[in-house]
Amino acid sequence: MTAGDSGQPIDPDLATFAGHLADEARAVAMRYFRTNLAVEEKPDQSPVTMADKGAEEIMRSMIADAYPQHGILGEEFGQEGRGREWVWVLDPIDGTGAFIAGMPLFGILIALARNGTPVLGLIDAPAVNERWTGSAGRPTLFNGARCAASTTDDLGQATLHTTSPDMFSGGQEARFHALCAATKRQRYGGDCYQYGVLALGGIELVIEDNMKPHDFMALAPVVTGAGGCISDWSGAPLTLESGGEVLASANPALHEAALAVLNPA
Amino acid sequence: MTAGDSGQPIDPDLATFAGHLADEARAVAMRYFRTNLAVEEKPDQSPVTMADKGAEEIMRSMIADAYPQHGILGEEFGQEGRGREWVWVLDPIDGTGAFIAGMPLFGILIALARNGTPVLGLIDAPAVNERWTGSAGRPTLFNGARCAASTTDDLGQATLHTTSPDMFSGGQEARFHALCAATKRQRYGGDCYQYGVLALGGIELVIEDNMKPHDFMALAPVVTGAGGCISDWSGAPLTLESGGEVLASANPALHEAALAVLNPA
Repeated sequence: MTAGDSGQPIDPDLATFAGHLADEARAVAMRYFRTNLAVEEKPDQSPVTMADKGAEEIMRSMIADAYPQHGILGEEFGQEGRGREWVWVLDPIDGTGAFIAGMPLFGILIALARNGTPVLGLIDAPAVNERWTGSAGRPTLFNGARCAASTTDDLGQATLHTTSPDMFSGGQEARFHALCAATKRQRYGGDCYQYGVLALGGIELVIEDNMKPHDFMALAPVVTGAGGCISDWSGAPLTLESGGEVLASANPALHEAALAVLNPA
Repeated sequence: MTAGDSGQPIDPDLATFAGHLADEARAVAMRYFRTNLAVEEKPDQSPVTMADKGAEEIMRSMIADAYPQHGILGEEFGQEGRGREWVWVLDPIDGTGAFIAGMPLFGILIALARNGTPVLGLIDAPAVNERWTGSAGRPTLFNGARCAASTTDDLGQATLHTTSPDMFSGGQEARFHALCAATKRQRYGGDCYQYGVLALGGIELVIEDNMKPHDFMALAPVVTGAGGCISDWSGAPLTLESGGEVLASANPALHEAALAVLNPA
């Protein structure tokens, strides 16, 4: 859960390869951005486009060629070898709603899990030409330069971000509102880009719920490599088996304070 | 309220001059973006920075030199000659919260009002190098090219955007929720950028409240010049004397349908 627990460094070739995946997915996404593309609805009513499908297809094919022994879990085309030691976790377009709306802060998420734990994570924002790369045991890079999360450890001074207040239901909504009440400012929108901005020191907290592994696995190495913390709402580390809760904080003290609000004695 | 009622064309030199204002304000904003700048709080607890102040100062000084007979109303330095025929309305950084957070969708808003009615409006988004220019009787330009709002006129297929659900209070909250319930998707965040995206055809509706003239005056010519409509929640046109309600729609039929939901018989 805390900064620095992301384990031993991995082969740097894997991060380089992940960058190539993002380059190719980016080209597909930008070919469709702000064009009048058809939007289908998935059974859960979430939207999907040719851009999502095309970007995932090219990444899956590159992984199958380069690392045939690795598993793949992607948002659009399901899982293959999920039980293997190494598994790539792909969200070809995170923030499809933003993408369809022509909002430039959608992202491509690429994670590599080792035995279920995320050890490599890329957040790529094609429309603004920005990329965060987090890798176990190494500092997070933003467009190639080291970046660091905020050192603000006072919850009352923190800015809290979430994509939408509508993502919380049942008892989670009250817990979310408790954290809102404990923080200085609440801001909305942003999908994966919020976690990138947290890694740059611009905001202190992100809280979300009902996330899938393809939504959250790539975020973990980016956040922890910038000095931040990320876990579910109980403080448990995020793995391939996690439920949908995500809490990211700029530093360990702030994470502890936020967890205390989410889990009153 | 409807498309095309924005009146007679104005001297194109005024739009050119507004572009120069935006260029200078953009340079100031970008000098401070993602730097560790001090944030002050205004009496209403909204944040303000050197970037807001510096950008407004340079624009006020340029206007005073070029058009000394015009009035100026700015977010940070108040009003001067508000009763004059021509009044410039300036928001040096709209979305200061986004700016401070390092989110790239903040904007510079520049409007020119004639006898209280907005006849020229610029939305400039410095961090993404995008600019919308709306001018009475002319089509809205996005980075110099004509753009058009969506022709979707079915409320049930529309995407509704607002900066934050926290901006509605009292009876307004219930009216906002009624419009949410009548639309297909609800999305959050974006400040002035939302209206730019509406003018590009990406979303169909934006609803906000508690806005000031510097927040809304520049939006009107951009939205109407793209075929859209903008008014308060009763359907009255936006002027320097309007209250804080804003409803923007991609086309007249959709605007009428949204107003009907906001104002049940």
